[in-house]
Amino acid sequence: MRTQVGIIGAGPAGLLLSRLLARRGIDSVVLENRSRDYVEARIRAGILEQHTVDTLTEAGLGDRLRREGLEHRGIHLQYPGTRHTLDFPELCGRTVWVYGQTEVVKDLIAAQLDDGPPLLFDVSDVTPEDVDGDSPRIRFTDADGVAQVLECDVIAGTDGFHGVSRPVVTAGTAGKLWERTYPYAWLGILADAAPSTDELIYAWHPEGFALYSMRSPSVSRLYLQVDPSDSIDNWSDDRIWDNLSRRLGIDGWEVSTGPVTEKSILPMRSFVSAPMRRGRLFLAGDAAHIVPPTGAKGLNLAVADVTLLAAALTRLLQEKRTDLVDAYSDTALRRVWRCTHFSWWMTSMLHTSGDDFDRELQLAQLRRVCSSEAAARELAENYTGLPIE
Amino acid sequence: MRTQVGIIGAGPAGLLLSRLLARRGIDSVVLENRSRDYVEARIRAGILEQHTVDTLTEAGLGDRLRREGLEHRGIHLQYPGTRHTLDFPELCGRTVWVYGQTEVVKDLIAAQLDDGPPLLFDVSDVTPEDVDGDSPRIRFTDADGVAQVLECDVIAGTDGFHGVSRPVVTAGTAGKLWERTYPYAWLGILADAAPSTDELIYAWHPEGFALYSMRSPSVSRLYLQVDPSDSIDNWSDDRIWDNLSRRLGIDGWEVSTGPVTEKSILPMRSFVSAPMRRGRLFLAGDAAHIVPPTGAKGLNLAVADVTLLAAALTRLLQEKRTDLVDAYSDTALRRVWRCTHFSWWMTSMLHTSGDDFDRELQLAQLRRVCSSEAAARELAENYTGLPIE
Repeated sequence: MRTQVGIIGAGPAGLLLSRLLARRGIDSVVLENRSRDYVEARIRAGILEQHTVDTLTEAGLGDRLRREGLEHRGIHLQYPGTRHTLDFPELCGRTVWVYGQTEVVKDLIAAQLDDGPPLLFDVSDVTPEDVDGDSPRIRFTDADGVAQVLECDVIAGTDGFHGVSRPVVTAGTAGKLWERTYPYAWLGILADAAPSTDELIYAWHPEGFALYSMRSPSVSRLYLQVDPSDSIDNWSDDRIWDNLSRRLGIDGWEVSTGPVTEKSILPMRSFVSAPMRRGRLFLAGDAAHIVPPTGAKGLNLAVADVTLLAAALTRLLQEKRTDLVDAYSDTALRRVWRCTHFSWWMTSMLHTSGDDFDRELQLAQLRRVCSSEAAARELAENYTGLPIE
Repeated sequence: MRTQVGIIGAGPAGLLLSRLLARRGIDSVVLENRSRDYVEARIRAGILEQHTVDTLTEAGLGDRLRREGLEHRGIHLQYPGTRHTLDFPELCGRTVWVYGQTEVVKDLIAAQLDDGPPLLFDVSDVTPEDVDGDSPRIRFTDADGVAQVLECDVIAGTDGFHGVSRPVVTAGTAGKLWERTYPYAWLGILADAAPSTDELIYAWHPEGFALYSMRSPSVSRLYLQVDPSDSIDNWSDDRIWDNLSRRLGIDGWEVSTGPVTEKSILPMRSFVSAPMRRGRLFLAGDAAHIVPPTGAKGLNLAVADVTLLAAALTRLLQEKRTDLVDAYSDTALRRVWRCTHFSWWMTSMLHTSGDDFDRELQLAQLRRVCSSEAAARELAENYTGLPIE
């Protein structure tokens, strides 16, 4: 087998990269070690920045997104006694869309299988080789158990935090890792309940952070700050709703409840690996960096990476010019650190931790964001997504 | 002896309060346990917010300030490879003034001794009594060793962090203290050297924060981040200049040196005590709160406190209305927490501490402030001083 770009991992980064390259006349093959059902069932983020919506639309994936997605013009920031609305169009002229990453992946897979480059599920033993030369290859075992070799010009490592690509990059470069594990986790639920809020509610509460979000007019997605060592077995649906009601509640308004269809506890981590390239192997998305979910940046950052990478690989493979691939890691990492800082900042402002002084600093910051145009705009510009350089 | 307002402490807060009250026809007596020479020699902050300049001017103290003070229209923010200027008038329409707190105190003392209410130096054994009733008093021993009683309607505790007033408030109220000691200190010098910079330079450097400020066209005030357990004896003038040159230096520019006339190591602390009132005893300035010096907020916050307190006491004593004194603590503390947060934020952004991830967060924040109008304006609005509510 031979292709121009071998792509490891069929998450949103890998699938979108394949599609962006195809539209520029560059062929690729996407390898995924899980099944289609598994990939399409993973529950992930749900907020799309404007540039993500634009990129998906340009890639021909805007129809269902614009039909079923929900455009959101702001968020509510809440702390005891106050629920304040940040109006994004007024603050920065942009909006965000609520449309689950799961749906994005379904759309990408459907398009890929319809008219796109090859997408192979259930492969195993995926191994990038000779990435320092001009003719790298990926060895893997296909779904039928047959050993295969995919010869490529370039390999894209879009196989997430636990994938095989990043270790190959770090083993062959003078690179560096940064990591921060937060002393709290999110307990997330999906519920068949019509949201009783128009916008997402980010709530600071003495008992811990809570977030009210939604996936559709009939499905709510809610989160509670919990201890990272806690077990989901300790959280009955009743206990979860009690806590959500208390942390999110304000006078004359309540959380609407319904059957819980999924619940789990998610650890929170910041992680950055640099560089994002070794020779002909390029990392994008979670393979290179993880942000805590508070700023809704993970999926959007992956899309920003592959937007840059698609342009860089096109220039390399069609014009034989290396300027953009040589700049790729530094360019991508500038945005990565901006989003890493913003995600850390949103997370640190909203989760109870530390001592009473930290708590008053959080409340002082929240009051400021809710009363100052400059502070509110700084949040809005970052949340809705800065332009891709 | 009898007066309307007994004021404990002849720092800028107590002296300015006495003056503001006098202009409204309210008499006061200021008691100070140090000598005039000692008080006038203390080296303190040097940046006045617009509202502080306005308040001093209204109090008849603007002449020398406007003649000898230096109006500053911005600051330089520096990190490796970048020196960026924030233009305050452009960002928020305000400026700041460089005029040492020492000079403010000299002006206040001269005015007080010229035509103001009594100001007694070298008193001792100062003790506020019966502050819960309508007739409090201050017992003290005067400079001649004679025991005295000052009967008052109200007592103002403006005697700083180590004064006698705050313990009386905390002992009699269901109050609370917040404190944060930072893992670094400032080594500060005064030097007879014409500053080689037009604006203050706040510099992040891998070896630690450095600040280039000035007191006049011929006197520089410079600071280095050092370990709080370090001794000034370890820092020869040469070593200090070497470190300043390295941390502040950029290509084609250097720090101008000169004889060091003062040097010392200053601990850095955040401290807030609430409430700021017990009965007829009101706290203002450092007696109630301390901020680290990075945001230049300490003196300005003291002036904001006494601006509120002068209005509240005037209403109480002249109109017999308690609304403003009842609101004083809460109103003052809102600004205290805003300034406490801002000072913590500036301090945390600029001082090296923590791990490599913290360092990258700092640089990401600095790059953002130097590239985003919203982030720059948020700094500028806080630095130049928010309006007094």
